[in-house]
Amino acid sequence: MSETFAVVNCSQLVTLAGAHRPRTGGDLRQLAIIEDGAMLVRGDTIEAAGRRREIESLINNDCEVIDAGRRVVMPGFVDAHTHPVFAGIRANEFEQRASGATYREIAARGGGIRSTVRTTRNASLADLVKSGKRYAEWFLRSGTTTIEAKSGYGLTLEDELKILRAIKQLNEETPLHYVPTFLGAHDVPSEYRSRRQTYVSLVVNEMLPRVAQEQLAEYCDVFCEQDVFTNDESWEILSAARCHGLGLRVHADQLSLSGGAKLAAELNAATADHLEHTDVTGIAALKAAKVQPVLLPGSVYALGSNDYPAAREMIEAGLAVVLATDFNPGSSPTPSMPMILSLACTQMKMTPAEAIIAATINAAYSLARGDQIGSLEKGKRADFVIHEPSDYRELAYFFGIEHPWRVYASGKLVCQKPDR
Amino acid sequence: MSETFAVVNCSQLVTLAGAHRPRTGGDLRQLAIIEDGAMLVRGDTIEAAGRRREIESLINNDCEVIDAGRRVVMPGFVDAHTHPVFAGIRANEFEQRASGATYREIAARGGGIRSTVRTTRNASLADLVKSGKRYAEWFLRSGTTTIEAKSGYGLTLEDELKILRAIKQLNEETPLHYVPTFLGAHDVPSEYRSRRQTYVSLVVNEMLPRVAQEQLAEYCDVFCEQDVFTNDESWEILSAARCHGLGLRVHADQLSLSGGAKLAAELNAATADHLEHTDVTGIAALKAAKVQPVLLPGSVYALGSNDYPAAREMIEAGLAVVLATDFNPGSSPTPSMPMILSLACTQMKMTPAEAIIAATINAAYSLARGDQIGSLEKGKRADFVIHEPSDYRELAYFFGIEHPWRVYASGKLVCQKPDR
Repeated sequence: MSETFAVVNCSQLVTLAGAHRPRTGGDLRQLAIIEDGAMLVRGDTIEAAGRRREIESLINNDCEVIDAGRRVVMPGFVDAHTHPVFAGIRANEFEQRASGATYREIAARGGGIRSTVRTTRNASLADLVKSGKRYAEWFLRSGTTTIEAKSGYGLTLEDELKILRAIKQLNEETPLHYVPTFLGAHDVPSEYRSRRQTYVSLVVNEMLPRVAQEQLAEYCDVFCEQDVFTNDESWEILSAARCHGLGLRVHADQLSLSGGAKLAAELNAATADHLEHTDVTGIAALKAAKVQPVLLPGSVYALGSNDYPAAREMIEAGLAVVLATDFNPGSSPTPSMPMILSLACTQMKMTPAEAIIAATINAAYSLARGDQIGSLEKGKRADFVIHEPSDYRELAYFFGIEHPWRVYASGKLVCQKPDR
Repeated sequence: MSETFAVVNCSQLVTLAGAHRPRTGGDLRQLAIIEDGAMLVRGDTIEAAGRRREIESLINNDCEVIDAGRRVVMPGFVDAHTHPVFAGIRANEFEQRASGATYREIAARGGGIRSTVRTTRNASLADLVKSGKRYAEWFLRSGTTTIEAKSGYGLTLEDELKILRAIKQLNEETPLHYVPTFLGAHDVPSEYRSRRQTYVSLVVNEMLPRVAQEQLAEYCDVFCEQDVFTNDESWEILSAARCHGLGLRVHADQLSLSGGAKLAAELNAATADHLEHTDVTGIAALKAAKVQPVLLPGSVYALGSNDYPAAREMIEAGLAVVLATDFNPGSSPTPSMPMILSLACTQMKMTPAEAIIAATINAAYSLARGDQIGSLEKGKRADFVIHEPSDYRELAYFFGIEHPWRVYASGKLVCQKPDR
């Protein structure tokens, strides 16, 4: 029999129970908090979550009891948009931006994504796994237990496969859970600038079949933007990906209103991500097609912009909004979902409860895992965090610090901070 | 003989050596980094900082050697503007602001500072020390070793004394160093709204003499703003404070261009703080009077505003800019100087080097401690941090996480993170 343990004395057990709408989970408006809650875990699975008395009646003598010390207990964050495998960091470009250079100017002189592509191509699989482990630990320390992880800094068949294999290895060798996404269409690499269609064909005819054959990705993503991949090119790649059985995600309307949200709706994608410039018709299209918006305020902040996406309008329209870090070495160097909660509440006027729903259960649905993670309910995987505060709102309120006291993934303690 | 230890194998020893201008320290433009640097500490004092070989030649057999593992080593941050002693938190108001209420609306219904004043008056000295210790640990975890600490949530003689005594006790009982500031003129308390002058007289004639007599503060601060204390009232209080031998700091031009910067210049204050609305004449006045600007981007961010102070203009004017957290339960709930570095670089276009100078040596000068802390130089107090990254720019670049790996105050290890 698997090992069993109980967690008791939670000031708030933030269960997020009750989202049962397949695919979008958008019916959840409340956190479903149990005060003085408790939880029973067997092996890697939640056996029960409820009031302390209920749970205590299920405890027998063999059962280890963990005292949460009147702290908040919540599901681990589900980060549905990250770029966590790359070589080199871009602190030098960060310095240039602080000195006034724009992201586009830096890209024009060979920096930006292309700089990371050069260093990542030169890196071995082992190098990528090593740096990936550093970032995996950052995610866990911040209370995240599942991330969606994109390739996209290789842009050759072999280098994209190398990144996806690194993601697979990180999923096996770290306690963090990875959901892999193929993003061969992250940028048109330098050597194909004058023959874009050749690169699109390479993605469609060589990369996608190989990625699908080796089962290295669950999703395909495209950076749909006038300067990157046009709507027609994005359509071609994403349609091909669907034929290979991959789910679809789209980088949409980040730098301009280029129609990415509408494209995502027409293709019935799982998500449209970024959406800084999406207008009301785009929002209506997402709603009609049940596409989930993934909002990434970390990149708006880090680029020094003020063009936050219209989160309130999306929530009012009934969309099941998702929040994610967009962790990457250029535009969003943060692995911290609590920091994203802070940005969502202070800059996009989401309430702390809306932000937490967006960072857990809604994110789980966007990754087709609404039945496995994102809430504390019987039968779900025991991915949960004991946070230092006693009130969940503090996670979004006090910013710049790491809130988790203990982090559990698949029922195992994977990160602990010194006792306060 | 005191205990001696060496720190070796620092990828970058960020010394900030070389600022010798009394009072403002504004001549430092470089971080004075020693690559592969090392340091020798005797008791609570830095004995030497230099190249590895130099320092190794000074090491004898009794000397403990700490391997920094190719990490960055820097002075502890000096946070020159905080409100770290209060009871209750204001997560409920944070939620209201996220739902669209403004700071002024919340204040009008009895929230804001007045809400914290009510809870703080009801708290005992022991309560305040207990919650203060929680925040002290947050500062240390974030790499800060000295904070300026203001009273201002009591607003009666006894309650202001209680807060200043809590600060004194925290200074004695935690490894964090506190520099106390009397801020009895933080707000006009409710019971004096119709007789403001009576409250000003109370501050001048009862609070200040007692604070000075008991040596509970080094500085006096006033919230100078049309709706709070007028320029004339601020002048009266600050002039009296000077007569009692206190240094002066001023909350200036935060909500409007009310002339606080000019007042600070006329009074020859040590600092003018906030300055979100200060114009070029205000900057010129600060420069002429050698008043240091203390910029607090955390509160601009947390209030969802975009009115960041004109940091670049101040630096170009030759002012010795200081950055601080403004840690408080309302407008700036962050104890993290690295988060402030991130805000300074992304939102105010300071370079990482400028931001670090502002957060260490310039801040030390603003507290009349430029000869004791804020840099790694022979004879200074051994307050330093071994940060996880190998490049100092990462401290401002990766945001939302805690960078310190080991924190030392007065030569003692006071905070350590699990090995990565």
